[in-house]
Amino acid sequence: MLKPFSDKVATLAPSAIREILKFTADPEVISFAAGNPAPEAFPTETIAKLSADIFAEEPINALQYSVTEGYPKLRQWLEADLRQKNLFKDGDMVVVTSGAQQAIEVTAKILCNEGDVILCENPSFIGSLNAFRSYGVKLVGVPMDKDGMLPSELEALLKANPTAKFIYTIPNFQNPTGQTTTLARRKDILALAKKYGIYVLEDNPYGALRFAGEDVSCYKELDDGKNVIYAGTFSKVLAPGIRVGYLCAESELVSKAVVGMQTSTVHTNIWAQMLAYRFVTTVDFNEHLKGLQEIYRVKYTRMKDALKIHLPEFISLSEPEGGLFIWATLPEKYDMNAFCVEAVKRKVAVVPGNAFSTDESEISHSFRLNFSTPTNEQIDMGCEILGNAAKELLK
Amino acid sequence: MLKPFSDKVATLAPSAIREILKFTADPEVISFAAGNPAPEAFPTETIAKLSADIFAEEPINALQYSVTEGYPKLRQWLEADLRQKNLFKDGDMVVVTSGAQQAIEVTAKILCNEGDVILCENPSFIGSLNAFRSYGVKLVGVPMDKDGMLPSELEALLKANPTAKFIYTIPNFQNPTGQTTTLARRKDILALAKKYGIYVLEDNPYGALRFAGEDVSCYKELDDGKNVIYAGTFSKVLAPGIRVGYLCAESELVSKAVVGMQTSTVHTNIWAQMLAYRFVTTVDFNEHLKGLQEIYRVKYTRMKDALKIHLPEFISLSEPEGGLFIWATLPEKYDMNAFCVEAVKRKVAVVPGNAFSTDESEISHSFRLNFSTPTNEQIDMGCEILGNAAKELLK
Repeated sequence: MLKPFSDKVATLAPSAIREILKFTADPEVISFAAGNPAPEAFPTETIAKLSADIFAEEPINALQYSVTEGYPKLRQWLEADLRQKNLFKDGDMVVVTSGAQQAIEVTAKILCNEGDVILCENPSFIGSLNAFRSYGVKLVGVPMDKDGMLPSELEALLKANPTAKFIYTIPNFQNPTGQTTTLARRKDILALAKKYGIYVLEDNPYGALRFAGEDVSCYKELDDGKNVIYAGTFSKVLAPGIRVGYLCAESELVSKAVVGMQTSTVHTNIWAQMLAYRFVTTVDFNEHLKGLQEIYRVKYTRMKDALKIHLPEFISLSEPEGGLFIWATLPEKYDMNAFCVEAVKRKVAVVPGNAFSTDESEISHSFRLNFSTPTNEQIDMGCEILGNAAKELLK
Repeated sequence: MLKPFSDKVATLAPSAIREILKFTADPEVISFAAGNPAPEAFPTETIAKLSADIFAEEPINALQYSVTEGYPKLRQWLEADLRQKNLFKDGDMVVVTSGAQQAIEVTAKILCNEGDVILCENPSFIGSLNAFRSYGVKLVGVPMDKDGMLPSELEALLKANPTAKFIYTIPNFQNPTGQTTTLARRKDILALAKKYGIYVLEDNPYGALRFAGEDVSCYKELDDGKNVIYAGTFSKVLAPGIRVGYLCAESELVSKAVVGMQTSTVHTNIWAQMLAYRFVTTVDFNEHLKGLQEIYRVKYTRMKDALKIHLPEFISLSEPEGGLFIWATLPEKYDMNAFCVEAVKRKVAVVPGNAFSTDESEISHSFRLNFSTPTNEQIDMGCEILGNAAKELLK
């Protein structure tokens, strides 16, 4: 190194999940560590046909430079779809991003100076936490119970952190806990955001993957002002490899996000945007979503049942109504990291909970299990192995 | 706005080129303002076939999450290709980015604190300048003559700016001037970078588009150490809409760039990476490049000849040996902006030179002309209109 790295990235490490995923390169390892959609959830034949149509009908449009805001037809479809769900309000604007990750990263970039605070559910999605860290932002974790962030704790933290710019939340089937914030909590949290004049960044990658219970209104829907910034994605409902997400918020903020994106990716891969547009306007998208929900309901049920058979009862499990993840928690007397290491030795990979902490040095007793990526057979075998490890190690 | 934007983006404006490009939405306007590859340069049929092959042979690989570093087969091809050109040295690493723009943006992010200095050719590519500005970096412009940056001026600026992190340069057919830095200058500039212990960020989007003269060794090739960071792209040699570029430098720096990219785009659209790999390994890539060089040679010659016929002799023109741009300069007594406004009124769009200045308030007497996007007929007609405007306005 000729010159040191910038202060904001100097201590930024690769995602801890990636370190775990290295073990999963071993084909004998059963991975419950990923967050990939189920391969069978990809409508590959439809995508192949739509892609061929694009190149037959408008190849130059799919290959030439495009505008940073996104493919106009896709933006119009998104605006209409979000408006119909009452997520897009007058004065709002929607832009297409390279995955929801870029929507989240650029929001931090345009709002936060180094040293500013972002209030995050604790635990939360490591990709977002690292995006925030990469701007030298201070992460302050908000304690949660099974209904979501605790309003009293949140208010105390809002008082203590006047440089807080926004509250970051994954309200539906949260990563990593799988939990959904209740409607009452959403209202309380939004009221606090309004009282203290800060934004809520609502990250909703899994909302369409509900396989039980009833939909809960989004923060964006509940908001009668300009407090909520909404990030969505096609990663879990079409395919993540195409990197198509979106940001919806009041237009002044979104316009600044566009300027930020113009300096990084210029625009999102235009073929991918055309593909997403053709997909949502060609197939019956609601039927497609129902098919996905059924795939994940079956996989979740399989893993839940296998865990109930094999794991000791003292390991508590979250009960997600959608999404991709289960959160398992050991009693405090046990060493969670030692358990995860033992599991990997036995060829089952899970993600230690401290990877998701706003303060990674915090002690965690939980680990994250993914049920979308493994096959049914891998789910059965992996849960049995975890159970045997628990029975031998946790006494 | 509930909260102000971050200091680093508060004054960041959309690219001035975009303002000009708004006029070009009028189909009657002939645009010499863009920087798009010629549509006829896209191998659309080959791309359509290769894309169909991808979906027939490995659809899940093209749709699932992938690794941030890039598609392994494309990385290996790039490494071999760069090594053969002596651009990839032992200890180097190459990663695939979402266009060269992301390679440049992430380099600024990982190296620069707010208030640090980047030394830039003046004028330079506005997309890079805005990427640097978006990190609160101070841009210091280095004066140039037709051979490139002036070493004596560069050394004075290096002495005056000890927080300079790197020198940013587009050595071949520079955007906007079309000029190529001579070999002697490159050696002098690299020696200064070594003397002062800073990096050279070498942005080479147009290097393969040489249609006259002889190749000049890259900074990356001339470097016997770790001073040069190299950014390349498939935008001008395959298609820009797929957003596939790359970064090549010593591995510690590139590894940090990967961590930065993990928090923004996660990875570059994987279908696009597979397409680029299949393209370079299926076609005769050198023959493909020769075809592109011929397309641009013909277009450049057409515009140069038309300008010589129609423009007054006192407007000087750069003489690019490749790339996409000609730089035209008026005598100091004339108002360049008034001329550009008059041109747009007459339905020809060019880009005023101050858009490319490190200090946009600087007075410029130049404007940029693009010859790759317009048709032959548009080139002829547009140059005649410019000539008439010049004869009437510049007396």
